[in-house]
Amino acid sequence: MPQLSAARVTIIGLGLMGGSLAAALKSRQAVRELVGVSRRAETVAYAEASNYVDRGTCDPRQGVEGADAVILATPVRAILKLISELGPYLKPGCLLLDLGSTKKAIVEAMAGLPAPVQPVGGHPLCGKELSGLEAAASDLYEGATFVLVPLPRTTPEALHLAEELAQAAGARPLTMSDAARHDRLLAVTSHLPYLLAAALVAVAEEVDDELIWQMMAGGFRDTSRLAAGNVDMRLDIFLTNQGPVREAIARFSQQLEHMAALLSEGQEEKWRQMVKPIWQRRKEMFR
Amino acid sequence: MPQLSAARVTIIGLGLMGGSLAAALKSRQAVRELVGVSRRAETVAYAEASNYVDRGTCDPRQGVEGADAVILATPVRAILKLISELGPYLKPGCLLLDLGSTKKAIVEAMAGLPAPVQPVGGHPLCGKELSGLEAAASDLYEGATFVLVPLPRTTPEALHLAEELAQAAGARPLTMSDAARHDRLLAVTSHLPYLLAAALVAVAEEVDDELIWQMMAGGFRDTSRLAAGNVDMRLDIFLTNQGPVREAIARFSQQLEHMAALLSEGQEEKWRQMVKPIWQRRKEMFR
Repeated sequence: MPQLSAARVTIIGLGLMGGSLAAALKSRQAVRELVGVSRRAETVAYAEASNYVDRGTCDPRQGVEGADAVILATPVRAILKLISELGPYLKPGCLLLDLGSTKKAIVEAMAGLPAPVQPVGGHPLCGKELSGLEAAASDLYEGATFVLVPLPRTTPEALHLAEELAQAAGARPLTMSDAARHDRLLAVTSHLPYLLAAALVAVAEEVDDELIWQMMAGGFRDTSRLAAGNVDMRLDIFLTNQGPVREAIARFSQQLEHMAALLSEGQEEKWRQMVKPIWQRRKEMFR
Repeated sequence: MPQLSAARVTIIGLGLMGGSLAAALKSRQAVRELVGVSRRAETVAYAEASNYVDRGTCDPRQGVEGADAVILATPVRAILKLISELGPYLKPGCLLLDLGSTKKAIVEAMAGLPAPVQPVGGHPLCGKELSGLEAAASDLYEGATFVLVPLPRTTPEALHLAEELAQAAGARPLTMSDAARHDRLLAVTSHLPYLLAAALVAVAEEVDDELIWQMMAGGFRDTSRLAAGNVDMRLDIFLTNQGPVREAIARFSQQLEHMAALLSEGQEEKWRQMVKPIWQRRKEMFR
Protein backbone atom coordinates (compact mmCIF):
# COMPACT_ATOMS: atom_id res chain seq x y z
CA MET A 1 0.00 0.00 0.00
CA PRO A 2 1.66 3.28 -1.14
CA GLN A 3 1.72 6.57 0.78
CA LEU A 4 -1.17 8.86 -0.18
CA SER A 5 1.21 11.21 -1.99
CA ALA A 6 2.32 8.32 -4.21
CA ALA A 7 -1.17 6.95 -4.83
CA ARG A 8 -3.42 7.00 -7.87
CA VAL A 9 -6.88 7.79 -6.50
CA THR A 10 -10.11 7.33 -8.44
CA ILE A 11 -13.34 9.04 -7.37
CA ILE A 12 -16.55 7.62 -8.86
CA GLY A 13 -19.42 10.08 -8.76
CA LEU A 14 -18.60 13.77 -9.22
CA GLY A 15 -21.49 15.41 -7.41
CA LEU A 16 -21.26 17.69 -4.38
CA MET A 17 -19.43 15.15 -2.18
CA GLY A 18 -17.16 13.48 -4.72
CA GLY A 19 -16.45 16.74 -6.52
CA SER A 20 -15.58 18.56 -3.30
CA LEU A 21 -13.27 15.73 -2.23
CA ALA A 22 -11.55 15.82 -5.61
CA ALA A 23 -11.19 19.60 -5.38
CA ALA A 24 -9.73 19.35 -1.86
CA LEU A 25 -7.20 16.63 -2.78
CA LYS A 26 -6.14 18.40 -5.98
CA SER A 27 -5.83 21.86 -4.44
CA ARG A 28 -3.47 20.41 -1.81
CA GLN A 29 -1.64 18.20 -4.30
CA ALA A 30 -2.29 15.35 -1.87
CA VAL A 31 -2.13 12.48 -4.36
CA ARG A 32 0.01 11.42 -7.30
CA GLU A 33 -2.87 11.19 -9.73
CA LEU A 34 -6.57 11.88 -9.38
CA VAL A 35 -9.01 10.19 -11.77
CA GLY A 36 -12.67 11.22 -11.87
CA VAL A 37 -15.57 9.09 -13.11
CA SER A 38 -19.03 10.37 -13.94
CA ARG A 39 -21.88 8.95 -16.01
CA ARG A 40 -22.15 12.23 -17.88
CA ALA A 41 -19.47 13.40 -20.29
CA GLU A 42 -20.25 17.06 -19.51
CA THR A 43 -19.54 16.47 -15.83
CA VAL A 44 -16.22 14.83 -16.68
CA ALA A 45 -15.34 17.77 -18.90
CA TYR A 46 -16.34 20.27 -16.21
CA ALA A 47 -14.20 18.43 -13.60
CA GLU A 48 -11.21 18.42 -15.94
CA ALA A 49 -11.65 22.07 -16.87
CA SER A 50 -11.94 23.03 -13.17
CA ASN A 51 -8.75 21.10 -12.43
CA TYR A 52 -10.60 18.98 -9.87
CA VAL A 53 -9.16 15.83 -11.53
CA ASP A 54 -6.08 15.01 -13.58
CA ARG A 55 -8.22 13.06 -16.01
CA GLY A 56 -11.75 11.76 -16.23
CA THR A 57 -13.80 9.05 -17.87
CA CYS A 58 -17.40 7.88 -18.10
CA ASP A 59 -16.35 4.23 -17.76
CA PRO A 60 -15.93 3.04 -14.15
CA ARG A 61 -13.92 -0.05 -15.15
CA GLN A 62 -11.46 2.06 -17.06
CA GLY A 63 -11.39 4.60 -14.24
CA VAL A 64 -10.35 2.10 -11.56
CA GLU A 65 -7.58 0.55 -13.65
CA GLY A 66 -4.32 0.68 -11.71
CA ALA A 67 -5.88 2.71 -8.90
CA ASP A 68 -4.41 2.40 -5.39
CA ALA A 69 -7.59 3.79 -3.85
CA VAL A 70 -11.13 3.98 -5.25
CA ILE A 71 -13.74 6.22 -3.62
CA LEU A 72 -17.43 5.63 -4.32
CA ALA A 73 -19.27 8.95 -4.09
CA THR A 74 -22.71 8.18 -5.51
CA PRO A 75 -26.09 7.69 -3.77
CA VAL A 76 -26.13 4.58 -1.53
CA ARG A 77 -27.88 2.15 -3.87
CA ALA A 78 -25.49 3.03 -6.70
CA ILE A 79 -22.63 2.40 -4.26
CA LEU A 80 -24.02 -1.07 -3.53
CA LYS A 81 -24.18 -1.80 -7.25
CA LEU A 82 -20.65 -0.51 -7.91
CA ILE A 83 -19.23 -2.64 -5.08
CA SER A 84 -20.49 -5.84 -6.66
CA GLU A 85 -19.66 -4.79 -10.23
CA LEU A 86 -16.18 -3.34 -9.73
CA GLY A 87 -14.73 -5.87 -7.26
CA PRO A 88 -13.08 -8.05 -9.92
CA TYR A 89 -11.54 -5.03 -11.66
CA LEU A 90 -9.72 -3.59 -8.65
CA LYS A 91 -5.97 -4.03 -8.37
CA PRO A 92 -4.90 -6.38 -5.52
CA GLY A 93 -4.53 -4.40 -2.30
CA CYS A 94 -6.64 -1.50 -3.63
CA LEU A 95 -8.43 0.53 -0.92
CA LEU A 96 -12.17 0.74 -1.63
CA LEU A 97 -13.75 3.58 0.35
CA ASP A 98 -17.26 5.00 0.01
CA LEU A 99 -18.95 8.24 1.10
CA GLY A 100 -22.47 6.89 1.66
CA SER A 101 -24.64 8.18 4.52
CA THR A 102 -25.69 4.71 5.73
CA LYS A 103 -23.09 2.08 6.49
CA LYS A 104 -24.65 -1.30 7.39
CA ALA A 105 -25.82 -2.31 3.91
CA ILE A 106 -22.61 -1.01 2.35
CA VAL A 107 -20.24 -2.78 4.76
CA GLU A 108 -22.22 -6.00 4.26
CA ALA A 109 -21.80 -5.67 0.51
CA MET A 110 -18.09 -4.94 0.97
CA ALA A 111 -17.69 -8.22 2.87
CA GLY A 112 -18.37 -10.01 -0.41
CA LEU A 113 -15.50 -8.32 -2.30
CA PRO A 114 -12.62 -10.42 -3.69
CA ALA A 115 -10.10 -11.11 -0.93
CA PRO A 116 -7.26 -8.83 -2.16
CA VAL A 117 -9.49 -5.70 -2.07
CA GLN A 118 -9.19 -3.57 1.10
CA PRO A 119 -12.63 -2.17 1.96
CA VAL A 120 -13.42 0.69 4.38
CA GLY A 121 -16.87 2.17 4.82
CA GLY A 122 -16.81 5.96 5.03
CA HIS A 123 -19.18 8.81 5.91
CA PRO A 124 -18.03 12.41 5.98
CA LEU A 125 -20.46 14.41 8.16
CA CYS A 126 -20.70 17.43 5.94
CA GLY A 127 -22.78 18.65 3.04
CA LYS A 128 -25.09 21.43 2.00
CA GLU A 129 -28.51 21.75 0.43
CA LEU A 130 -27.10 22.29 -3.04
CA SER A 131 -26.03 19.30 -5.10
CA GLY A 132 -24.01 18.63 -8.22
CA LEU A 133 -20.45 19.42 -9.22
CA GLU A 134 -21.29 23.12 -9.66
CA ALA A 135 -21.85 23.29 -5.89
CA ALA A 136 -18.55 21.55 -5.07
CA ALA A 137 -16.04 23.40 -2.88
CA SER A 138 -12.54 22.44 -1.82
CA ASP A 139 -13.31 23.44 1.80
CA LEU A 140 -16.52 21.40 2.22
CA TYR A 141 -14.76 18.76 4.36
CA GLU A 142 -12.87 21.30 6.47
CA GLY A 143 -13.26 20.43 10.15
CA ALA A 144 -15.91 17.76 9.52
CA THR A 145 -15.93 14.40 11.28
CA PHE A 146 -15.22 11.63 8.73
CA VAL A 147 -16.50 8.29 10.04
CA LEU A 148 -14.45 5.28 8.90
CA VAL A 149 -15.80 1.75 9.30
CA PRO A 150 -13.10 -0.90 8.70
CA LEU A 151 -14.12 -4.54 8.17
CA PRO A 152 -12.50 -7.39 10.14
CA ARG A 153 -10.51 -8.17 6.98
CA THR A 154 -9.26 -4.63 6.48
CA THR A 155 -5.49 -4.23 7.08
CA PRO A 156 -4.19 -1.43 9.36
CA GLU A 157 -2.34 -0.05 6.33
CA ALA A 158 -5.54 0.28 4.33
CA LEU A 159 -7.33 1.99 7.24
CA HIS A 160 -4.36 4.32 7.59
CA LEU A 161 -4.58 5.29 3.91
CA ALA A 162 -8.29 6.04 4.40
CA GLU A 163 -7.41 8.23 7.40
CA GLU A 164 -4.81 10.05 5.34
CA LEU A 165 -7.42 10.71 2.66
CA ALA A 166 -9.86 12.14 5.19
CA GLN A 167 -7.17 14.32 6.73
CA ALA A 168 -5.93 15.51 3.36
CA ALA A 169 -9.43 16.83 2.69
CA GLY A 170 -9.35 18.72 6.01
CA ALA A 171 -11.60 16.30 7.92
CA ARG A 172 -11.11 14.51 11.26
CA PRO A 173 -11.24 10.70 10.83
CA LEU A 174 -13.23 8.79 13.46
CA THR A 175 -12.99 5.01 13.38
CA MET A 176 -16.12 3.12 14.31
CA SER A 177 -16.25 -0.61 13.74
CA ASP A 178 -19.99 -1.07 14.28
CA ALA A 179 -21.88 -0.05 11.13
CA ALA A 180 -25.29 -0.66 12.72
CA ARG A 181 -24.40 1.71 15.55
CA HIS A 182 -23.49 4.37 12.99
CA ASP A 183 -26.84 3.93 11.27
CA ARG A 184 -28.84 4.10 14.53
CA LEU A 185 -27.11 7.34 15.53
CA LEU A 186 -27.43 8.93 12.10
CA ALA A 187 -31.13 8.07 12.01
CA VAL A 188 -31.50 10.58 14.87
CA THR A 189 -28.88 13.17 13.95
CA SER A 190 -29.50 13.37 10.20
CA HIS A 191 -32.29 11.23 8.74
CA LEU A 192 -34.98 12.30 11.21
CA PRO A 193 -34.10 16.02 10.81
CA TYR A 194 -34.63 15.66 7.05
CA LEU A 195 -38.08 14.15 7.58
CA LEU A 196 -39.01 16.97 9.98
CA ALA A 197 -37.88 19.57 7.46
CA ALA A 198 -39.82 17.96 4.62
CA ALA A 199 -43.01 17.39 6.64
CA LEU A 200 -42.83 21.00 7.87
CA VAL A 201 -42.77 22.34 4.31
CA ALA A 202 -45.65 19.96 3.47
CA VAL A 203 -47.73 21.43 6.32
CA ALA A 204 -47.07 24.98 5.10
CA GLU A 205 -47.97 23.94 1.54
CA GLU A 206 -51.30 22.61 2.81
CA VAL A 207 -52.33 25.91 4.41
CA ASP A 208 -54.95 27.58 2.24
CA ASP A 209 -53.69 31.15 2.69
CA GLU A 210 -51.15 32.65 0.29
CA LEU A 211 -50.00 35.08 2.96
CA ILE A 212 -48.21 32.21 4.69
CA TRP A 213 -45.18 32.61 2.43
CA GLN A 214 -44.72 36.14 3.75
CA MET A 215 -44.88 34.97 7.35
CA MET A 216 -41.62 33.01 7.14
CA ALA A 217 -38.45 34.13 8.83
CA GLY A 218 -35.16 32.62 9.96
CA GLY A 219 -36.80 29.99 12.16
CA PHE A 220 -38.71 28.35 9.33
CA ARG A 221 -35.76 28.76 6.99
CA ASP A 222 -33.36 26.88 9.25
CA THR A 223 -35.78 24.21 10.42
CA SER A 224 -36.73 23.41 6.81
CA ARG A 225 -33.27 23.71 5.23
CA LEU A 226 -32.66 19.99 4.76
CA ALA A 227 -35.81 19.69 2.65
CA ALA A 228 -33.89 21.44 -0.16
CA GLY A 229 -31.36 18.60 -0.32
CA ASN A 230 -30.96 16.01 -3.04
CA VAL A 231 -34.11 13.86 -3.23
CA ASP A 232 -32.56 10.70 -4.71
CA MET A 233 -29.67 10.64 -2.27
CA ARG A 234 -32.13 10.90 0.62
CA LEU A 235 -34.40 8.18 -0.72
CA ASP A 236 -31.50 5.71 -0.81
CA ILE A 237 -30.56 6.61 2.75
CA PHE A 238 -34.07 5.87 3.99
CA LEU A 239 -34.41 2.63 2.05
CA THR A 240 -31.15 1.33 3.54
CA ASN A 241 -31.90 2.42 7.13
CA GLN A 242 -35.57 1.63 7.62
CA GLY A 243 -35.57 0.13 11.12
CA PRO A 244 -33.58 2.86 12.87
CA VAL A 245 -35.50 5.60 11.00
CA ARG A 246 -38.83 4.07 12.05
CA GLU A 247 -37.65 4.00 15.65
CA ALA A 248 -36.45 7.60 15.50
CA ILE A 249 -39.83 8.69 14.11
CA ALA A 250 -41.64 6.84 16.90
CA ARG A 251 -39.48 8.43 19.60
CA PHE A 252 -39.94 11.84 18.04
CA SER A 253 -43.72 11.48 17.89
CA GLN A 254 -43.74 10.56 21.59
CA GLN A 255 -41.77 13.67 22.50
CA LEU A 256 -43.96 15.91 20.35
CA GLU A 257 -47.15 14.46 21.84
CA HIS A 258 -45.76 14.89 25.32
CA MET A 259 -45.01 18.56 24.67
CA ALA A 260 -48.43 19.07 23.13
CA ALA A 261 -50.11 17.49 26.16
CA LEU A 262 -48.19 19.70 28.61
CA LEU A 263 -49.29 22.78 26.70
CA SER A 264 -52.92 21.66 26.43
CA GLU A 265 -53.02 21.05 30.16
CA GLY A 266 -51.29 24.36 30.87
CA GLN A 267 -48.58 22.50 32.83
CA GLU A 268 -46.18 25.43 32.96
CA GLU A 269 -43.78 24.01 35.51
CA LYS A 270 -43.52 20.59 33.86
CA TRP A 271 -43.02 22.34 30.52
CA ARG A 272 -40.14 24.36 31.93
CA GLN A 273 -38.66 21.23 33.50
CA MET A 274 -38.73 19.54 30.12
CA VAL A 275 -37.61 22.44 27.97
CA LYS A 276 -34.87 24.03 30.10
CA PRO A 277 -32.44 21.06 29.76
CA ILE A 278 -33.16 20.96 26.02
CA TRP A 279 -32.36 24.67 25.78
CA GLN A 280 -29.20 24.16 27.84
CA ARG A 281 -28.07 21.19 25.74
CA ARG A 282 -28.67 22.99 22.45
CA LYS A 283 -26.74 26.05 23.63
CA GLU A 284 -23.76 23.89 24.61
CA MET A 285 -23.80 21.77 21.47
CA PHE A 286 -23.12 24.44 18.90
CA ARG A 287 -21.34 27.56 20.05
CA MET B 1 -49.94 62.76 16.51
CA PRO B 2 -46.39 64.10 15.84
CA GLN B 3 -43.98 62.97 13.12
CA LEU B 4 -41.68 60.18 14.26
CA SER B 5 -38.72 62.54 14.28
CA ALA B 6 -40.54 64.80 16.76
CA ALA B 7 -41.79 61.95 18.95
CA ARG B 8 -40.78 60.81 22.41
CA VAL B 9 -40.72 57.00 22.18
CA THR B 10 -40.64 54.67 25.19
CA ILE B 11 -39.61 51.02 24.85
CA ILE B 12 -40.58 48.75 27.73
CA GLY B 13 -38.47 45.60 27.90
CA LEU B 14 -34.82 45.87 26.84
CA GLY B 15 -34.11 42.32 25.74
CA LEU B 16 -33.07 41.18 22.28
CA MET B 17 -36.11 42.66 20.50
CA GLY B 18 -36.63 45.88 22.46
CA GLY B 19 -32.90 46.52 22.75
CA SER B 20 -32.31 46.00 19.04
CA LEU B 21 -35.21 48.31 18.17
CA ALA B 22 -33.81 50.97 20.52
CA ALA B 23 -30.35 50.56 18.99
CA ALA B 24 -31.77 50.87 15.45
CA LEU B 25 -33.83 53.99 16.22
CA LYS B 26 -30.98 55.68 18.10
CA SER B 27 -28.29 54.88 15.55
CA ARG B 28 -30.44 56.51 12.86
CA GLN B 29 -31.52 59.38 15.09
CA ALA B 30 -35.06 58.51 14.08
CA VAL B 31 -36.85 59.96 17.13
CA ARG B 32 -36.67 63.06 19.29
CA GLU B 33 -36.19 61.18 22.54
CA LEU B 34 -35.86 57.46 23.33
CA VAL B 35 -36.72 56.24 26.82
CA GLY B 36 -35.93 52.67 27.89
CA VAL B 37 -37.64 50.73 30.66
CA SER B 38 -36.34 47.53 32.21
CA ARG B 39 -37.08 45.76 35.49
CA ARG B 40 -33.38 45.50 36.19
CA ALA B 41 -31.25 48.57 37.00
CA GLU B 42 -28.16 46.93 35.43
CA THR B 43 -30.00 46.57 32.13
CA VAL B 44 -31.04 50.22 32.22
CA ALA B 45 -27.44 51.23 32.95
CA TYR B 46 -26.15 49.01 30.12
CA ALA B 47 -28.67 50.52 27.67
CA GLU B 48 -27.68 54.05 28.66
CA ALA B 49 -23.96 53.28 28.47
CA SER B 50 -24.42 51.68 25.03
CA ASN B 51 -26.30 54.78 23.87
CA TYR B 52 -29.29 52.63 22.93
CA VAL B 53 -31.54 55.04 24.87
CA ASP B 54 -31.42 58.70 25.86
CA ARG B 55 -32.47 57.81 29.37
CA GLY B 56 -33.80 54.81 31.23
CA THR B 57 -35.87 53.86 34.25
CA CYS B 58 -37.09 50.77 36.10
CA ASP B 59 -40.53 52.28 36.57
CA PRO B 60 -42.92 51.75 33.62
CA ARG B 61 -45.32 54.49 34.76
CA GLN B 62 -42.54 57.03 34.93
CA GLY B 63 -41.18 55.75 31.61
CA VAL B 64 -44.41 56.33 29.67
CA GLU B 65 -44.95 59.84 31.02
CA GLY B 66 -45.32 62.25 28.13
CA ALA B 67 -44.55 59.57 25.55
CA ASP B 68 -46.01 59.90 22.03
CA ALA B 69 -45.44 56.20 21.37
CA VAL B 70 -44.97 53.32 23.78
CA ILE B 71 -43.61 49.97 22.57
CA LEU B 72 -44.12 46.86 24.68
CA ALA B 73 -41.19 44.50 24.07
CA THR B 74 -41.62 41.86 26.78
CA PRO B 75 -42.89 38.24 26.61
CA VAL B 76 -46.58 38.05 25.63
CA ARG B 77 -48.10 37.59 29.08
CA ALA B 78 -46.14 40.54 30.45
CA ILE B 79 -47.43 42.56 27.47
CA LEU B 80 -51.01 41.64 28.43
CA LYS B 81 -50.37 42.78 32.00
CA LEU B 82 -48.74 46.04 30.90
CA ILE B 83 -51.65 46.86 28.59
CA SER B 84 -54.14 46.74 31.45
CA GLU B 85 -51.84 48.45 33.95
CA LEU B 86 -50.47 51.27 31.83
CA GLY B 87 -53.63 52.30 29.95
CA PRO B 88 -54.62 55.05 32.41
CA TYR B 89 -51.11 56.51 32.42
CA LEU B 90 -50.73 57.00 28.68
CA LYS B 91 -51.04 60.48 27.25
CA PRO B 92 -54.19 61.00 25.11
CA GLY B 93 -53.47 59.99 21.51
CA CYS B 94 -50.41 57.95 22.50
CA LEU B 95 -49.60 55.08 20.13
CA LEU B 96 -49.35 51.78 22.00
CA LEU B 97 -47.49 49.19 19.91
CA ASP B 98 -46.23 45.77 21.01
CA LEU B 99 -43.69 43.30 19.60
CA GLY B 100 -45.35 40.06 20.80
CA SER B 101 -45.29 36.92 18.64
CA THR B 102 -49.01 36.18 19.03
CA LYS B 103 -51.61 38.82 18.27
CA LYS B 104 -55.15 37.67 19.10
CA ALA B 105 -54.90 37.85 22.90
CA ILE B 106 -52.97 41.11 22.72
CA VAL B 107 -55.35 42.86 20.34
CA GLU B 108 -58.28 41.73 22.49
CA ALA B 109 -56.60 43.24 25.54
CA MET B 110 -55.89 46.43 23.58
CA ALA B 111 -59.60 46.77 22.81
CA GLY B 112 -60.15 47.50 26.52
CA LEU B 113 -57.72 50.45 26.62
CA PRO B 114 -59.03 53.95 27.49
CA ALA B 115 -60.52 55.55 24.39
CA PRO B 116 -57.80 58.18 23.75
CA VAL B 117 -55.06 55.54 23.47
CA GLN B 118 -54.18 54.45 19.90
CA PRO B 119 -53.36 50.73 19.92
CA VAL B 120 -51.61 48.75 17.16
CA GLY B 121 -50.57 45.12 17.52
CA GLY B 122 -47.11 44.47 16.12
CA HIS B 123 -44.91 41.48 15.28
CA PRO B 124 -41.49 41.89 13.67
CA LEU B 125 -40.54 38.59 11.98
CA CYS B 126 -36.94 38.54 13.09
CA GLY B 127 -34.88 37.30 16.00
CA LYS B 128 -32.07 34.97 16.84
CA GLU B 129 -31.40 32.21 19.33
CA LEU B 130 -29.58 34.51 21.71
CA SER B 131 -31.56 36.66 24.10
CA GLY B 132 -30.96 39.64 26.33
CA LEU B 133 -29.66 43.14 25.69
CA GLU B 134 -26.09 41.85 25.21
CA ALA B 135 -27.33 40.12 22.04
CA ALA B 136 -29.06 43.26 20.69
CA ALA B 137 -27.96 44.58 17.30
CA SER B 138 -29.05 47.69 15.44
CA ASP B 139 -29.46 45.68 12.21
CA LEU B 140 -31.69 42.91 13.62
CA TYR B 141 -34.82 44.36 11.96
CA GLU B 142 -33.10 45.00 8.62
CA GLY B 143 -35.25 43.62 5.79
CA ALA B 144 -37.66 41.83 8.14
CA THR B 145 -41.42 41.85 7.66
CA PHE B 146 -43.06 43.79 10.50
CA VAL B 147 -46.71 42.77 10.86
CA LEU B 148 -49.00 45.56 12.08
CA VAL B 149 -52.52 44.80 13.32
CA PRO B 150 -54.62 47.96 13.74
CA LEU B 151 -57.87 47.80 15.72
CA PRO B 152 -61.15 49.19 14.32
CA ARG B 153 -60.65 52.18 16.64
CA THR B 154 -57.08 52.90 15.50
CA THR B 155 -56.72 56.15 13.52
CA PRO B 156 -54.86 56.16 10.18
CA GLU B 157 -52.38 58.59 11.76
CA ALA B 158 -51.53 56.16 14.55
CA LEU B 159 -51.08 53.30 12.07
CA HIS B 160 -48.88 55.57 9.99
CA LEU B 161 -46.67 56.32 13.00
CA ALA B 162 -46.33 52.57 13.65
CA GLU B 163 -45.32 52.09 10.00
CA GLU B 164 -42.75 54.86 10.32
CA LEU B 165 -41.31 53.15 13.40
CA ALA B 166 -41.02 49.81 11.58
CA GLN B 167 -39.39 51.47 8.57
CA ALA B 168 -37.01 53.48 10.73
CA ALA B 169 -35.73 50.18 12.14
CA GLY B 170 -35.16 48.89 8.59
CA ALA B 171 -38.21 46.61 8.48
CA ARG B 172 -41.02 46.32 5.92
CA PRO B 173 -44.43 47.00 7.54
CA LEU B 174 -47.27 44.65 6.54
CA THR B 175 -50.75 45.58 7.71
CA MET B 176 -53.03 42.67 8.59
CA SER B 177 -56.30 43.39 10.32
CA ASP B 178 -57.13 39.81 11.31
CA ALA B 179 -55.16 38.87 14.43
CA ALA B 180 -56.48 35.30 14.46
CA ARG B 181 -55.25 34.82 10.89
CA HIS B 182 -51.79 36.01 11.97
CA ASP B 183 -51.77 33.50 14.82
CA ARG B 184 -52.89 30.60 12.60
CA LEU B 185 -50.13 31.31 10.08
CA LEU B 186 -47.44 31.82 12.70
CA ALA B 187 -48.42 28.54 14.38
CA VAL B 188 -47.13 26.86 11.20
CA THR B 189 -44.24 29.14 10.27
CA SER B 190 -42.75 29.71 13.72
CA HIS B 191 -44.39 27.95 16.68
CA LEU B 192 -44.41 24.46 15.12
CA PRO B 193 -40.76 24.76 14.00
CA TYR B 194 -39.77 25.51 17.60
CA LEU B 195 -41.58 22.39 18.84
CA LEU B 196 -39.85 20.28 16.17
CA ALA B 197 -36.46 21.65 17.18
CA ALA B 198 -37.06 21.02 20.89
CA ALA B 199 -38.50 17.52 20.40
CA LEU B 200 -35.56 16.65 18.11
CA VAL B 201 -33.03 17.59 20.81
CA ALA B 202 -35.11 15.60 23.33
CA VAL B 203 -34.88 12.50 21.09
CA ALA B 204 -31.09 12.87 20.82
CA GLU B 205 -30.84 13.31 24.60
CA GLU B 206 -32.73 10.06 25.08
CA VAL B 207 -30.27 8.02 23.00
CA ASP B 208 -28.09 5.97 25.33
CA ASP B 209 -24.85 6.36 23.37
CA GLU B 210 -22.46 9.24 24.11
CA LEU B 211 -21.05 9.04 20.59
CA ILE B 212 -24.25 10.67 19.32
CA TRP B 213 -22.90 14.14 20.10
CA GLN B 214 -20.06 13.52 17.68
CA MET B 215 -22.45 12.45 14.93
CA MET B 216 -24.00 15.91 14.57
CA ALA B 217 -23.39 18.13 11.60
CA GLY B 218 -25.01 21.11 9.90
CA GLY B 219 -28.35 19.35 9.39
CA PHE B 220 -28.99 18.75 13.07
CA ARG B 221 -27.60 22.16 13.95
CA ASP B 222 -30.01 24.03 11.69
CA THR B 223 -33.08 21.88 12.36
CA SER B 224 -32.59 22.27 16.13
CA ARG B 225 -31.55 25.93 16.20
CA LEU B 226 -34.83 27.32 17.57
CA ALA B 227 -34.51 25.08 20.65
CA ALA B 228 -31.77 27.44 21.87
CA GLY B 229 -34.21 30.35 21.99
CA ASN B 230 -35.63 32.02 25.09
CA VAL B 231 -37.77 29.53 27.05
CA ASP B 232 -40.09 31.99 28.79
CA MET B 233 -40.85 33.92 25.63
CA ARG B 234 -41.78 30.68 23.88
CA LEU B 235 -43.97 29.44 26.71
CA ASP B 236 -46.06 32.63 26.54
CA ILE B 237 -46.44 32.22 22.80
CA PHE B 238 -47.80 28.68 23.16
CA LEU B 239 -50.14 29.55 26.02
CA THR B 240 -51.69 32.36 23.97
CA ASN B 241 -52.01 30.34 20.73
CA GLN B 242 -53.11 26.90 21.85
CA GLY B 243 -55.76 26.05 19.26
CA PRO B 244 -53.73 26.90 16.15
CA VAL B 245 -50.62 25.22 17.59
CA ARG B 246 -52.59 22.05 18.34
CA GLU B 247 -53.89 22.03 14.77
CA ALA B 248 -50.41 22.57 13.34
CA ILE B 249 -49.06 19.66 15.42
CA ALA B 250 -51.89 17.41 14.20
CA ARG B 251 -51.25 18.31 10.56
CA PHE B 252 -47.55 17.77 11.01
CA SER B 253 -48.03 14.36 12.61
CA GLN B 254 -50.19 13.33 9.65
CA GLN B 255 -47.51 14.34 7.17
CA LEU B 256 -44.78 12.58 9.12
CA GLU B 257 -46.84 9.39 9.42
CA HIS B 258 -47.59 9.52 5.73
CA MET B 259 -43.90 9.79 4.87
CA ALA B 260 -43.06 6.98 7.30
CA ALA B 261 -45.71 4.75 5.72
CA LEU B 262 -44.43 5.38 2.18
CA LEU B 263 -40.92 4.41 3.30
CA SER B 264 -42.07 1.32 5.17
CA GLU B 265 -43.97 0.15 2.12
CA GLY B 266 -41.04 0.96 -0.16
CA GLN B 267 -43.31 3.20 -2.26
CA GLU B 268 -40.49 4.88 -4.16
CA GLU B 269 -42.59 6.56 -6.82
CA LYS B 270 -45.17 7.91 -4.38
CA TRP B 271 -42.33 9.13 -2.17
CA ARG B 272 -40.77 11.01 -5.07
CA GLN B 273 -44.18 12.45 -6.00
CA MET B 274 -44.57 13.76 -2.48
CA VAL B 275 -41.03 14.97 -1.88
CA LYS B 276 -40.14 16.58 -5.23
CA PRO B 277 -42.65 19.46 -4.88
CA ILE B 278 -41.47 19.99 -1.28
CA TRP B 279 -37.89 20.17 -2.52
CA GLN B 280 -38.92 22.57 -5.28
CA ARG B 281 -40.88 24.80 -2.92
CA ARG B 282 -38.08 24.95 -0.36
CA LYS B 283 -35.52 25.82 -3.03
CA GLU B 284 -37.70 28.67 -4.29
CA MET B 285 -38.57 30.02 -0.85
CA PHE B 286 -35.13 31.00 0.33
CA ARG B 287 -32.53 31.74 -2.30
